[in-house]
Amino acid sequence: MPRFDVISQGEELLSGSTVDTNAGWVCHELAQIGLEPGRVTVVGDVLDDIRDVLGESAARVPVVICTGGLGPTSDDLTSEAAAAAFGQALATNAEALAQVEERYRARKREMPPANRKQAVLPTEATVLENRLGTAPGFRMEIGGAVLYFLPGVPYEMKAMVMEHVIPELRARFALPPRRTVVIRCMGIAESVAAQKMEGFERAGVIVGYRAHMPEVHVKLHLAPELDGAALVLEVRERLGNVIFGVDCGPLAEVVGQHLRARGETIATAESCTAGRIAAALGAIPGASDYLLGGAVVYSNAEKVRQCGVDPDLIAAHGAVSEPVARALAEGIRAQVGTTWGLAVTGIAGPSGGSPDKPVGTVHLALAGPSGTTHRKISLPFERERVLTFTVGAALDLLRRTLEGDT
Amino acid sequence: MPRFDVISQGEELLSGSTVDTNAGWVCHELAQIGLEPGRVTVVGDVLDDIRDVLGESAARVPVVICTGGLGPTSDDLTSEAAAAAFGQALATNAEALAQVEERYRARKREMPPANRKQAVLPTEATVLENRLGTAPGFRMEIGGAVLYFLPGVPYEMKAMVMEHVIPELRARFALPPRRTVVIRCMGIAESVAAQKMEGFERAGVIVGYRAHMPEVHVKLHLAPELDGAALVLEVRERLGNVIFGVDCGPLAEVVGQHLRARGETIATAESCTAGRIAAALGAIPGASDYLLGGAVVYSNAEKVRQCGVDPDLIAAHGAVSEPVARALAEGIRAQVGTTWGLAVTGIAGPSGGSPDKPVGTVHLALAGPSGTTHRKISLPFERERVLTFTVGAALDLLRRTLEGDT
Repeated sequence: MPRFDVISQGEELLSGSTVDTNAGWVCHELAQIGLEPGRVTVVGDVLDDIRDVLGESAARVPVVICTGGLGPTSDDLTSEAAAAAFGQALATNAEALAQVEERYRARKREMPPANRKQAVLPTEATVLENRLGTAPGFRMEIGGAVLYFLPGVPYEMKAMVMEHVIPELRARFALPPRRTVVIRCMGIAESVAAQKMEGFERAGVIVGYRAHMPEVHVKLHLAPELDGAALVLEVRERLGNVIFGVDCGPLAEVVGQHLRARGETIATAESCTAGRIAAALGAIPGASDYLLGGAVVYSNAEKVRQCGVDPDLIAAHGAVSEPVARALAEGIRAQVGTTWGLAVTGIAGPSGGSPDKPVGTVHLALAGPSGTTHRKISLPFERERVLTFTVGAALDLLRRTLEGDT
Repeated sequence: MPRFDVISQGEELLSGSTVDTNAGWVCHELAQIGLEPGRVTVVGDVLDDIRDVLGESAARVPVVICTGGLGPTSDDLTSEAAAAAFGQALATNAEALAQVEERYRARKREMPPANRKQAVLPTEATVLENRLGTAPGFRMEIGGAVLYFLPGVPYEMKAMVMEHVIPELRARFALPPRRTVVIRCMGIAESVAAQKMEGFERAGVIVGYRAHMPEVHVKLHLAPELDGAALVLEVRERLGNVIFGVDCGPLAEVVGQHLRARGETIATAESCTAGRIAAALGAIPGASDYLLGGAVVYSNAEKVRQCGVDPDLIAAHGAVSEPVARALAEGIRAQVGTTWGLAVTGIAGPSGGSPDKPVGTVHLALAGPSGTTHRKISLPFERERVLTFTVGAALDLLRRTLEGDT
């Protein structure tokens, strides 16, 4: 198997102020098509360091993916380092300049003079279009190696790997085409999924796992002659209803499609998540078809005012309790007049926990035409993770109810 | 400044199934005491790869921190790789064996025979105690370089860095500390910030930039004798009030601190952002001190019901308009009874735009004790970015108002 190296550039990665998630993603995707990861190297914004590692990787492996350092500022040094590493001059690349200018035209903004720098490339580089940002990428052939230079902004980099790098590498190394089926799950840990999938691999089937909080993705990489649908059914037998979709968008999109298809509507009432569930639904284009509104009810007074929760209920059971969750869901449903009312109340931490109700205690409730469903979950994590998993669990309660499986 | 390399070992890091957070942490901690990060390299569980990178780093820099690969299983290869890299034999180290055995005794467990492997070290290695796990670490002196081999389990590794590595390196190099000042900005592009900062660098001052959407961070890396406060003032003269804080948390935390200090409260009314502003405020621990509640008003009916917006106003101006934004802010403030009402209505796209009101048209309004402020912004981006920058702009309108600068 041909090996590849990844080089992640950026002072913020080296200083530890940003965690490098790009390199792992690139390793994963390139391994999927049949390449073997060699080294990942992180370097700062130091010209000689970048130059050296580029030269070393190009001498060692046939494929090098380099991310970051394509911006317009003086600490963006990739182009200069690549030119130095491989003895090329730097010049403004007309095609790259046209792409940068076009990106600004499309945004109806004037291009700052600094951005001309993004079109200055090693003379023998070929440009790679970046549809999502101003920094064009580029490709160099050095000896037997191909080097790809991509922006560090994750979603720009990912799109360019998919559009340019993977198709080219497939062709270059005549890698057998593999189909990848992505099975998206909510409510299962990656390690548990892996355990349940033990022994599933067979000729033409490679299984990969990816935690994408709060989701877990199980990927089947299939030889083209295999029946994907039958294999997915087999996976369903192993994993059950934690699977919310196959080759689909995020859970908020899946529940949105359900709601749109049924002509139904939803409103949310959120305490600890403070709008995050509504925002997840609203992040999906066209959400206004089914998301009518919602209430952020951080204070008890707002729980009473916006959702008509009986203050005595809060006094008797506490704001984080099953009765209050149910009252929130039923209240917001009645107030907004939607098919569904989805509510959450919990303790996100770091403070506010008690022996009785520790941090991570969350009550979910879904009110609908046939009554109200409640779930209590325990998420022994830090605040951000509690909130992320609460959104996932709330949307999954809705999904399971819409699919008739509670 | 002496440089250091970090080597992170483990197939799970290279495959992308685990994100390497160790390396960034080590870089950060060692930079604090005055060492300069050189490279971070991630390698898999391949003996030759580990051996090579150890040899290369030891030849290049005077300090190498290597994490992972000290476990008892066959894919834990660090000790073997270090011996091979530096031409030493392997032997059971009596001190290391005593530590492993003691760890099991303390846990009242029998030591599995496999764990004897954890005490097999290069002959010239010296043992480093691991108080928190079974794998002892070790130290090697190779030429002018010192190499530390630490476990990959983060909390074990971190304790050992604090207990062994940092005190030793402090003594070894006796270097003055270097300071990094992070100046956080909202409402300026990275390239524009860099343009305004041109020529700022001088002896002892290095400037770095980092886009952290929707924020931009300008970092000053300073020699210890320089006056950080005076330099920050100089930066303020160049960048102006896009600076929302220095060495602080995210904007939502900064506005939260302002509100808490003033004993004031806030409620939100969100159309296109669908709860994202409230969620950003609610992500900060202790937000319940000032965030009372909010309304997600996706539908026009909810704008009327929750915020008392006059339906005729919507009919006359459209939901995305200055009058409606103002009415939302004033309405939610009155309904919840807060000091501040923050509202947003806009077109996030991809559909819903018109020549008059293209995608990315957003109206912000902030109602407060002295009246209502309005801002219209244009964000010619895709949906996700429109929403991200809208949250930033809304919180920044609040921040500027609280600081008396609108």
